[in-house]
Amino acid sequence: MSLDGLSINLATVRKQYTFAQAVEACLAQGITAIAPWRDQIHAIGLKEAASIVQSNNMRVTGLCRGGMFPAADKAGLAAAIDDNKRAIDEAVALHADCLVIVVGGLPSGSRELPTARQMVVDGLAAILPHARESHMPLAIEPLHPMYAADRACVNTLEQALDVCELLGEGIGVVIDVYHVWWDPKLLSQIARAGASGRILAHHICDWLVPTRDLLLDRGMMGDGVIDLQGIRAAIEAAGYHGPQEVEIFSSENWWKRPGAEVLATCVERFHTTCCPRTT
Amino acid sequence: MSLDGLSINLATVRKQYTFAQAVEACLAQGITAIAPWRDQIHAIGLKEAASIVQSNNMRVTGLCRGGMFPAADKAGLAAAIDDNKRAIDEAVALHADCLVIVVGGLPSGSRELPTARQMVVDGLAAILPHARESHMPLAIEPLHPMYAADRACVNTLEQALDVCELLGEGIGVVIDVYHVWWDPKLLSQIARAGASGRILAHHICDWLVPTRDLLLDRGMMGDGVIDLQGIRAAIEAAGYHGPQEVEIFSSENWWKRPGAEVLATCVERFHTTCCPRTT
Repeated sequence: MSLDGLSINLATVRKQYTFAQAVEACLAQGITAIAPWRDQIHAIGLKEAASIVQSNNMRVTGLCRGGMFPAADKAGLAAAIDDNKRAIDEAVALHADCLVIVVGGLPSGSRELPTARQMVVDGLAAILPHARESHMPLAIEPLHPMYAADRACVNTLEQALDVCELLGEGIGVVIDVYHVWWDPKLLSQIARAGASGRILAHHICDWLVPTRDLLLDRGMMGDGVIDLQGIRAAIEAAGYHGPQEVEIFSSENWWKRPGAEVLATCVERFHTTCCPRTT
Repeated sequence: MSLDGLSINLATVRKQYTFAQAVEACLAQGITAIAPWRDQIHAIGLKEAASIVQSNNMRVTGLCRGGMFPAADKAGLAAAIDDNKRAIDEAVALHADCLVIVVGGLPSGSRELPTARQMVVDGLAAILPHARESHMPLAIEPLHPMYAADRACVNTLEQALDVCELLGEGIGVVIDVYHVWWDPKLLSQIARAGASGRILAHHICDWLVPTRDLLLDRGMMGDGVIDLQGIRAAIEAAGYHGPQEVEIFSSENWWKRPGAEVLATCVERFHTTCCPRTT
């Protein structure tokens, strides 16, 4: 079966591999699409990273990540905007499909979610012209509500799409099953996102029961309770047929295993648990 | 300042006190409203518990808890329905304001949230006639989305109110800030709940940053990031002026402190951080 539909977010093997090692390990499994994080790119250097991508004909399904707009003061917001513009340039250099945006949570000491959410809109509006000129789509990733305080105050697909519609062209969403699987409005919002052409990426992993850590206990596809096949079917029905990108943060399990084992498991589970049942 | 507006959910001091001890400790602080859990009632016996409540003229702001409907088979759902009818009777015996409903998550091995959610509606529909005859309101508590798999597949106020409207009279919601504070639609849904007279209880605690455990790391009011005063103002503007009920599960902090210290802190924080600012 083809692996065209599979991408590996390099956070999944960040403890095992450098960027160059991760690319080599993916290719060894037949995987030809990746999504790196900026720290991984910075460690090797943007030029070298782009060269590795190009010479191996890799698809980059996203660069992680821009965002993190809410700040305690205007200088903080301005600094975030500058950094996001650099992130757009890096995504362009890597020929990434999109720049993933994790919008940021509450500034330290704040309890004002509406204010933080407005800062997100302001920050996105400030970088969107540069993104459009650069032909680099911005992909808002709504994060699970348990991250509202410290990582992202955009917490549902509905909310992310409202922001997109406010801002216009050049911006869409990442649908990461870990963050949205619980949402009673998930299917209707996937359809809405597809109808407006705003599905830019589809991330997969699984929700474990029990979940032992809020951040670093994501599961391998098939080991948890997310209806991966059902969600993928809805995403395809909405018109998105791009790769599924495996993104697993797992400090006590997958990050401790050999990278080749992790990647081989991703390939196996992609085939067995992630593609819509054909009837 | 009066303590009429303060209730203590006895889970807050469950490691320190039996039911009878908890009542005594609350009265010593001037607290005259409580919300017990069924296991605490069963330990002392319903008749004795009811006698203690009555002789001390305590208000019972809710009995925790009914619900837990989704089951692997019909026998499981039938057993849950029977147990919920007994819970209604116990709430009546205690003259509780409502029976708190934590609806339940996915049956073991299931990935089908829509099926579980339908079982919740079916279960509630099955017990609602008994609740109405008993004049005991059912109060659906939407739980934070991080509990969708293992505790409750009703995860937003909007979703809970949709269920209420489907089922009609005799059913409403608990608004627990811990579960709903992140919701971008919170204020509009509080207004909707108030307009239909469905706000039956208001639970408080705080969301800590970082949160170290998904279940047992709730914070004392004022120690986290929830805008308690703002949410209370919205709830009062929606027409609900009943008590705020402190419910804190805290295995590593508050459950390890002397009960009197915990209760005194609840009283202090209620005054300093929970009541709407008067301007």
